[in-house]
Amino acid sequence: MNVTLGSRASHYRTVTFDARRNAVRLIEQRLLPHRFEIAATPDFRETAAAIRDMVVRGAPAIAATAAYGLAQGARAFRGRSLARFERHVERVYETLKAARPTAVDPVNAMNHVRSVMRAGETVEEQQTLALAAAENFANQSVAECRAIGEHGAKFIRNGIKILTHCNAGWLACVDIGTATAPIYAAQAQGKKFHVFCDETRPRSQGATLTAWELGQQKISHQVIADNAAGHLMQRGEIDLVIVGSDRTLGRTGEVANKIGTYTKAVLAKRHGIPFYVAIPFSTIDWNLKSGFDIPIEERDESEVLGAWGTIWNLKSQISNLKSRRVYVRVANPASGARNPGFDVTPAELVTGIITPAGIFRPQELWLRRSELGFAGGRKS
Amino acid sequence: MNVTLGSRASHYRTVTFDARRNAVRLIEQRLLPHRFEIAATPDFRETAAAIRDMVVRGAPAIAATAAYGLAQGARAFRGRSLARFERHVERVYETLKAARPTAVDPVNAMNHVRSVMRAGETVEEQQTLALAAAENFANQSVAECRAIGEHGAKFIRNGIKILTHCNAGWLACVDIGTATAPIYAAQAQGKKFHVFCDETRPRSQGATLTAWELGQQKISHQVIADNAAGHLMQRGEIDLVIVGSDRTLGRTGEVANKIGTYTKAVLAKRHGIPFYVAIPFSTIDWNLKSGFDIPIEERDESEVLGAWGTIWNLKSQISNLKSRRVYVRVANPASGARNPGFDVTPAELVTGIITPAGIFRPQELWLRRSELGFAGGRKS
Repeated sequence: MNVTLGSRASHYRTVTFDARRNAVRLIEQRLLPHRFEIAATPDFRETAAAIRDMVVRGAPAIAATAAYGLAQGARAFRGRSLARFERHVERVYETLKAARPTAVDPVNAMNHVRSVMRAGETVEEQQTLALAAAENFANQSVAECRAIGEHGAKFIRNGIKILTHCNAGWLACVDIGTATAPIYAAQAQGKKFHVFCDETRPRSQGATLTAWELGQQKISHQVIADNAAGHLMQRGEIDLVIVGSDRTLGRTGEVANKIGTYTKAVLAKRHGIPFYVAIPFSTIDWNLKSGFDIPIEERDESEVLGAWGTIWNLKSQISNLKSRRVYVRVANPASGARNPGFDVTPAELVTGIITPAGIFRPQELWLRRSELGFAGGRKS
Repeated sequence: MNVTLGSRASHYRTVTFDARRNAVRLIEQRLLPHRFEIAATPDFRETAAAIRDMVVRGAPAIAATAAYGLAQGARAFRGRSLARFERHVERVYETLKAARPTAVDPVNAMNHVRSVMRAGETVEEQQTLALAAAENFANQSVAECRAIGEHGAKFIRNGIKILTHCNAGWLACVDIGTATAPIYAAQAQGKKFHVFCDETRPRSQGATLTAWELGQQKISHQVIADNAAGHLMQRGEIDLVIVGSDRTLGRTGEVANKIGTYTKAVLAKRHGIPFYVAIPFSTIDWNLKSGFDIPIEERDESEVLGAWGTIWNLKSQISNLKSRRVYVRVANPASGARNPGFDVTPAELVTGIITPAGIFRPQELWLRRSELGFAGGRKS
């Protein structure tokens, strides 16, 4: 999407590849919204570290990063022995996989690249095919987001107010985003509307990443405390909720997403407000039979007990630019915290799932699995 | 309640009066949980400033502060002219009232002091009565909280997990607290249980004040993001919710409280978890006919866009003590925020109202208004 730096607007993807330098280029998301920088990882080990250290996050974005990382590692091999090349590629694959062990998307992406490259008969052919497959994967990911936007934009009428949670925007993808795709598509159709961004404690991705994205795209928006959505719904100030998902169960329609999503779904149901989940195909888990089987990561308590930000002078309204982001302890120093990272929303609270293939009721996914990329009994 | 400084535990009230120095003494709540200090205001104007600037907060606590402030102002008068004394007291009254214009509790408290002091026939007699009335008001406030605790403790069974929101603890009162009163009473009965403190963005009173209070009282507790309660309820980890209230409508049973309370009530209802509201008599508004008539304060957007804390080194786990509390900007610098401070929970979501006179269903308040201090058609 477009990023305006100074007076100049340029188009950026979250993840790209520099073939000449054999480097993956990533928007350094840990610096946003306070600084915009591109990080280049010149080696597959550094690409893995960028995934692990959250330079890049969001399932579709880390999938594309892993795909490029595998091609990058393959291309760094010097020699003609296919046997040695394959052992090398295996090491690259395992290194990238270990960077985010609970995520399924990077594995799927690398499996795609590996299956394409194996058609090559020489090391050089396989290296060429690897990069082509990674580029194809990234382009396919963008096309899926674009299709999500086209399907979802019809729910965005002129003048409505939309609530979104966390960041399922273009920074979480290669471009366009999932939950944000209908928003950008509706904007392109000339519609005017307003977006409330849940700040999304404890990591504040709504206040930082989504607000920054919407600001860059010049979409009317405000940040709200996660506590405020219920009140705004009660007063008729929210017309539509759109969120992303980290894993949606194809068999049950249950939606795992950032902690707090379930709460918003319960509130939306009470107020009769449509609640949509926007996902690419790779987010659908065709195996698990119950949301209670989804492991819920318990994250470090420091996230809840404090906040990251830049030191800011409330009177002059400017940040102290010399100071980078700092962590401040907000909570009582002697207290601990519980920090579940995700929650599971049952299908009955979800109005519809917006996919690249169209909009489905959550209970409908399994019935229409052939349209949704179901790959049989294997891990999808 | 008891505060442990170093190895010494001492009993403190949130608000007290130093008759010799004619000063109101307040726990400086803006420094908690990082520092414990007592602020003394030697003049009624400074007492008003302490209310305005949130050195002291919480309806019962600011009510007692205003009562003491009125006595303080009255006692500072030099002269024998009752007419001039009354004009002086009127100025004190208006100054204190203006410090928190939307609150009804300080006005009620000052009306009580003024009506008692008017029985005096000389300036000196009125000054003496004013202080006696203020002391009586504060003691009465503590007695009400103690009674709330005795009634509410029966809901706290051994081993349960309790959720609370914001701070309706002893720091919000003269002592003991409202929502925390049943917790402290149950502890005194030897019961063991666990409390989850909603951090309560944007001002984080749960993470700072409630967590500090519970820590001082050695009650097992953890801070959670406001987003996490829904997930914990879904997994059976919350058995009881107790909150306070800023205003409860006697005619309808609707409960105005800190933003986010409504959301927790909706979630509790869905999961069949009892949701109790603990209030002193002064919190009941016998006049308003609908929760939609309660004005919802829109606060400054800086609260949502950032956070207050102390700079903290995550590796050494110690704060930089040289730096006092700082404000950090968390959100995108170019974005704005909506910041409603309160929300309204309808009676159907409230299991019971815990008052000093016992426990009532919210719909029952009006019927039993004579037990609950209803003072006819006048502003209560």
